[in-house]
Amino acid sequence: MRLSRYFLPVLRDVPAEAQTPSHQLMLRAGLIRQNAAGIYSWLPLGKRVLSKIEQIVREEQERAGAIEILMPTIQSADLWRESGRYDAYGKEMLRITDRHDRELLYGPTNEEMVTDIVRSSVKSYKQLPLNLFHIQWKFRDEIRPRFGIMRGREFLMKDAYSFDLTSEASRLSYYRMFCAYLRTFKRLGLTAIPVRADTGPIGGDLSHEFIVLAETGESAVFCDGRLLELPPPEGALDSPDDLEAEVERHTSYYAATDEMHEPERFTAEVPTDHQMTARGIEVGHIFHFGTKYSEPMSASVTGPDGRETMLQMGSYGIGVSRLVGAAIEAGHDEKGIVWPLEIAPFQVAVVSLRPGDAEVETACEAAYDQLQSAGVDTLYDDTGERPGAKFATLELIGIPVLIVVGPKGLAKGVVEIRQRKTGDTEELGLEAAVARVRELIGA
Amino acid sequence: MRLSRYFLPVLRDVPAEAQTPSHQLMLRAGLIRQNAAGIYSWLPLGKRVLSKIEQIVREEQERAGAIEILMPTIQSADLWRESGRYDAYGKEMLRITDRHDRELLYGPTNEEMVTDIVRSSVKSYKQLPLNLFHIQWKFRDEIRPRFGIMRGREFLMKDAYSFDLTSEASRLSYYRMFCAYLRTFKRLGLTAIPVRADTGPIGGDLSHEFIVLAETGESAVFCDGRLLELPPPEGALDSPDDLEAEVERHTSYYAATDEMHEPERFTAEVPTDHQMTARGIEVGHIFHFGTKYSEPMSASVTGPDGRETMLQMGSYGIGVSRLVGAAIEAGHDEKGIVWPLEIAPFQVAVVSLRPGDAEVETACEAAYDQLQSAGVDTLYDDTGERPGAKFATLELIGIPVLIVVGPKGLAKGVVEIRQRKTGDTEELGLEAAVARVRELIGA
Repeated sequence: MRLSRYFLPVLRDVPAEAQTPSHQLMLRAGLIRQNAAGIYSWLPLGKRVLSKIEQIVREEQERAGAIEILMPTIQSADLWRESGRYDAYGKEMLRITDRHDRELLYGPTNEEMVTDIVRSSVKSYKQLPLNLFHIQWKFRDEIRPRFGIMRGREFLMKDAYSFDLTSEASRLSYYRMFCAYLRTFKRLGLTAIPVRADTGPIGGDLSHEFIVLAETGESAVFCDGRLLELPPPEGALDSPDDLEAEVERHTSYYAATDEMHEPERFTAEVPTDHQMTARGIEVGHIFHFGTKYSEPMSASVTGPDGRETMLQMGSYGIGVSRLVGAAIEAGHDEKGIVWPLEIAPFQVAVVSLRPGDAEVETACEAAYDQLQSAGVDTLYDDTGERPGAKFATLELIGIPVLIVVGPKGLAKGVVEIRQRKTGDTEELGLEAAVARVRELIGA
Repeated sequence: MRLSRYFLPVLRDVPAEAQTPSHQLMLRAGLIRQNAAGIYSWLPLGKRVLSKIEQIVREEQERAGAIEILMPTIQSADLWRESGRYDAYGKEMLRITDRHDRELLYGPTNEEMVTDIVRSSVKSYKQLPLNLFHIQWKFRDEIRPRFGIMRGREFLMKDAYSFDLTSEASRLSYYRMFCAYLRTFKRLGLTAIPVRADTGPIGGDLSHEFIVLAETGESAVFCDGRLLELPPPEGALDSPDDLEAEVERHTSYYAATDEMHEPERFTAEVPTDHQMTARGIEVGHIFHFGTKYSEPMSASVTGPDGRETMLQMGSYGIGVSRLVGAAIEAGHDEKGIVWPLEIAPFQVAVVSLRPGDAEVETACEAAYDQLQSAGVDTLYDDTGERPGAKFATLELIGIPVLIVVGPKGLAKGVVEIRQRKTGDTEELGLEAAVARVRELIGA
C-alpha cells in the first residue's frame, strides 16, 4: 500500500478523553474513531489488525474441529424467555421493539440461538459431537463505556458452542477448546495464561479465563511463574489422554486473578522464587455448563440406548476486538505501538527519505515490488513528509521493520533496516536488505 | 472437510413458507435457518458461500483503489438529524433507545457516518481522492419480510463512499466503481447488466442499478441483447478517458427495469432481433450525489486556491447476502442448486460408494488429500448413506464436480467424474481423475 493513497489519520496530541495506553494509542495511530459512547469505527489500519486476529482465531477454531456459522446480531426475545435469561439479563441487554411491536434484542451472546438451531436439526447421537462457532458483533449496553474498545458497547467476539451426548465427552470438548485457546494466543504473539474463573451469568460447573499479561492490565494476577514458560499444546490432540494431559499441565500451577485469589494457598503452594504478581487483561472465557440450556429448551437427541438424552454443552468466547487493545497494552513504548509480527497491520514499511529523487524512487519501488510479490504486507511511505515526521508516524503505528532508502545511503550502495522493537539498525545493499527483512519476518 | 464431521442439515421436503426457488433451496440445502421474521442464521454451507462472495467483492474494491474500514452497526440518531434523514427515513429504520434514553438506530446505510469520519480528519484537497468501503450487517425493518434472505431484515452489504474535490473527479470515482462492479459480478460467475436507476432516498443526479438476470427475478428487464455479450472492463483503468470509454461502452445500449422502462424508446432504439425481455434481481446500486450530505454536514476541505470547498460524494452498494440468493435464482434446476464455480461452498466432492471398504477408502483418502493439498475446497462424503441419497444431497447443495469412488470402478481401475451443471460423466484412473478435476475447476 502506498501511504500517499492510504487513509491514516494520526493524531499528534493525546486525546483528553483517553486514559489507558491502548485507548490513547488506538486513537493517535488512527486505528479507530468513536462514533457514539462505546461505539467505534475501525479505520483502515485498525481493520487490518482486527482481520488478522480474526483469521488466526478462525484457523485455530477450525483446526480444533469447530465449524463456522454466522448467527444474526438481532435476536427474538422469545428465545431468551425459554431459557429464563430475558428478565435475568438486566440493563446490559439492548432491548429493541420493531415496527410490529415485537420484542427483539441485540445479542450479547448466543447460547439460546445456537441451541435452537441444533435442537431443530440434530436428532441422533450419531450427529455428535458438534462444535459450532461464529465471529459476530455483539452489544452490551455498559452503564459507563470506557477504555476505548476494551470496554465498549459494540464488540466483535468469537463464540463457539459444543454439543455432546455425555458429560465425559463434553468435558473433552472443553479441553479441546482450552488447548485451542493456548495455541491461538501463542500464534497472536501474546503471553496468555488460563485461570480458573467464576461462571457468572453463563453458568456451569467449570470455567477458565485466559488472561494476557500487561503491566497496564485491568486485573491483578497471581501465579506460579513457571506457567509462563510452558509451550502451547502441539500435535493433533485427538486422544482423550493427550487432551487431559495438556490441560493438566497448564492448570497444575497456581494462577488466579484478584477475584478468585487465595493468598494462603498462593504462599503455601508456590515456591517463593516462583511467586509472580502481575497485571492482565481477560481476552477469553470458556464455560462447561452441561444441560443448563438444553434442559429448559428441550434440546435432546436419541442416545445409542434409544432414550432421549439432553445435550451436554459448553461455550467458548474470545474477545476479538478486545485483543487489539490487549496486544497494545502488552506491547507499546513511549514512541507508540510495538505490534507482534503476526498481527501488525503491515509487517514492513519502505521509507523514501527523498521522494522525487529518481534513484531513491527506483530503489524504493524495487524493494516494495519484491516484498509485495513475496506476500509481505508492505507499506510504502512515498509521501513528501520530512524524515523525522515519517519515523514518528511509523513508530507510532508500530510497523515492525523499516527499510529506509535515502540518497546518502544509496551513494554508499546501502539502505538501512530498522527494527521497531529493539531499535537495531543494519546497513545492507538493497537485494541483501530485502532478503534480510524476509528473514526477520519469516516470509 | 469430511461430511461425517460436518453440520449439513438438509431438508427432504420443500418448506411450506418458502415460495421462491432461492428461498426453498437455501432452506432445503441447509444454507440458512430462520431465527425470526426476516432474520437468518448462516449455517456452515451458507457461510462458506457468503464468505467467498465477500472476498471477491473485497478484492475488486481494493483493486479499484477503495480502502477497507469497518463502521459499527449501531449509530447515533443525532448524526441522521444533521442530514435531515432521521425523520425522513420512516418505519424501515430500526430505532433503538439505550439505558440512558439516548436515541440510536441500526444502520440501514452509512452516508452520514462516513461523512462524519472524513470531515473530522480530511482537511486538505491533497488528501483526496478517497474511497472508503466496508462490509457490514445492515437492518431494514421491512413491513413484510419475504423470499428468505432476498428481502430479509438483517442483511450483509458492501457500501463504499467516494470523496473528491471536484464534480468531474467525483464522476470519475463513480465510473471507477461502475467498472469495478462489472468485474465483480463477472468474477462471481453471474451475468449482470447496469441499468439507469432512480436515486430514491439516497438522492443525487446519477445512479445505476446492477441486475443479475434470472428467470425467477423480481423485476422485468428490457434491454438490447448485445449488452450481454460485452466483456467486462480490463486493465488498470487509471486514465479518465479509459474510464469514460468503458462506461460509455456499457451504457450505450438500451437497458431498463420496468420502473424506468420507456416502451417507445425501446422499440425505436433497439433493432427488433436484439430486443430482449427478461427478468432480474437488483444486486448493486451506485449513486452520485455531489454535496447532498457534505453541505448539511459541513464536510469541506481547503482547495488548491485556499478556499473551503464542499466534498463531492458518491455511494456504492452491493448486496452481499442478497447475491447468494441471486446466484441460486440464476443457477438451479429440478435437482437443486447449480453454483458458479467461484462461489460454490466446495468445488469438488469425493464420494465413497462403499465406506468401510479398505480399497475404496484408500482411493478416496488419496484423492481427498491431493485435492486439499492443491488448495481445492473439497468435501469428502465418507458417510454411511446409500449412494442414491448421497447423490441427491450433493446435487441439492450443488457441488460442481464429483469424484465417485466405488468397488466396481476400482476393479476396472477407474473412478467416475460427474459434472453438476452438464451431467457429463467420465471414467479415469485415480491420478488422471484428480488431474482432470483440477483442470475442470482451474486449480
